[in-house]
Amino acid sequence: MRNLNQDNITQAVIARLAATPDPRLKQVLTSLVQHLHAFAREVKLTEAEWAYGIDFLTRVGHTCTDQRQEFILLSDTLGLSMLTVALNNQKPEGCTEATVFGPFHVEGAPEVPHGADVANGAPGKPCEVSGHVRGPRGEAVAGAVIDVWQADADGLYDVQREGLEQPQGRAVLRSGADGGFHFKTVVAEPYPIPTDGPVGEMLTATKRHPWRPAHLHFRIQAPGYQTLVTHVFRNGDPYLDSDAVFGVRSSLLADWVEQPDGRITLDFDFVLAPQ
Amino acid sequence: MRNLNQDNITQAVIARLAATPDPRLKQVLTSLVQHLHAFAREVKLTEAEWAYGIDFLTRVGHTCTDQRQEFILLSDTLGLSMLTVALNNQKPEGCTEATVFGPFHVEGAPEVPHGADVANGAPGKPCEVSGHVRGPRGEAVAGAVIDVWQADADGLYDVQREGLEQPQGRAVLRSGADGGFHFKTVVAEPYPIPTDGPVGEMLTATKRHPWRPAHLHFRIQAPGYQTLVTHVFRNGDPYLDSDAVFGVRSSLLADWVEQPDGRITLDFDFVLAPQ
Ligand SMILES: [Fe+2]
Ligand SMILES: [Fe+2]
Repeated sequence: MRNLNQDNITQAVIARLAATPDPRLKQVLTSLVQHLHAFAREVKLTEAEWAYGIDFLTRVGHTCTDQRQEFILLSDTLGLSMLTVALNNQKPEGCTEATVFGPFHVEGAPEVPHGADVANGAPGKPCEVSGHVRGPRGEAVAGAVIDVWQADADGLYDVQREGLEQPQGRAVLRSGADGGFHFKTVVAEPYPIPTDGPVGEMLTATKRHPWRPAHLHFRIQAPGYQTLVTHVFRNGDPYLDSDAVFGVRSSLLADWVEQPDGRITLDFDFVLAPQ
Repeated sequence: MRNLNQDNITQAVIARLAATPDPRLKQVLTSLVQHLHAFAREVKLTEAEWAYGIDFLTRVGHTCTDQRQEFILLSDTLGLSMLTVALNNQKPEGCTEATVFGPFHVEGAPEVPHGADVANGAPGKPCEVSGHVRGPRGEAVAGAVIDVWQADADGLYDVQREGLEQPQGRAVLRSGADGGFHFKTVVAEPYPIPTDGPVGEMLTATKRHPWRPAHLHFRIQAPGYQTLVTHVFRNGDPYLDSDAVFGVRSSLLADWVEQPDGRITLDFDFVLAPQ
């Protein structure tokens, strides 16, 4: 344990994890140390780069508040979030695919009845959303807890606005006896992820745009089924092939349809995978 | 760029880095994404583990203040700091070896004359430290800027104590015409790294002790020479073979000697590598 060099330090650190009681924690930390060290060795990380990294991560941490999660944004933009989703959500054929959770979900949004206006004052074109929650054999899933959240026409989630007294563009609904639900809201529009923090600095330095294609977030929980965290994306959006967080699934595209009477409607059914 | 899965998402993220103007940034980020993804794939990171990781890093960030650097502590305890030191400090034969910078250095410590008491009231056994700064051919390095900092007998750096009005156990000296310097202070003792934050949680979960063997920190800067960041470790310390941050070098061990008249002295010469 003395005179460690670049060739033997990794094994020395791993040896120090030998007494970890939880075998899974030991496995995860051992792999983390190996890959973290392999990265530093591969690029021959300089001390100035190491110091930049420490400062960058510190600023990411200091940007996180109750209302903002810059580490999720960093994970999202590095593709780690979507990789984790892919590793854990290989759903059976016919079940709705999952995508990233994102940094803007808030637990405890108000529960509203069917037909309520979820926008609650958020700017945008009014629209009506409906759908059903089903199981893989087409059975209705009644009483599913449906979290819905979205950005408004300015591309902002309520938590990004100062001084709002009530949630906007977010609510919880419960599916009815036939699995159905419906609510009013505003049409989802493409939006840039926040670029005024360290993640924005990374996007600028790599000449990446910050845009996400228009989408509506859903989290659907029901006993006996896997929790589904997903989006419905808007067909025809210019950013479908360059989502800043790598989340687009063809199976999650849908049309916001202009009806003959001028109403705009979205209908989308979700199929949950059994637990 | 749609329907990315665990097998193709890494290449998709790397492709998004293609326009990065700075070739070194592109190289570092590309390698980081590859190794980060390889880690997640290798352990099949669960969504709960991902969420724990986001929360852990957020808490590390929130623990960082002007007086405390928990990300450096995390890097130190994962061996990344010492690996980076090893990668960048392969000194010529005969030059003093480097070790970790640590989280407790403060820029702008007061400059003091030779003979001053650097402890400045910190508790501990009084001692006298002397040495010379030399170049690789034995030449005196005059006017070198010597930062020295240390924990006191309670195992605390001044920045870990509340309400101190003046720095304790840290100062800047300049080497004299013969490269020599000397100052008074207190004997360095082993100390535990801070365990009241997320890094402490990691040490507890892995049953690792938090102790560092007794040491005195030095940073020595002189024109024409590489900056040296190192420690002098105390011979015989019980933690020399299990330093919590992997920093011990046999060449950096020295004796705090009790003289016949009762004084305790440490003498250590530093040899700087040419730039
Ligand atoms: Fe979103
Ligand atoms: Fe130290």
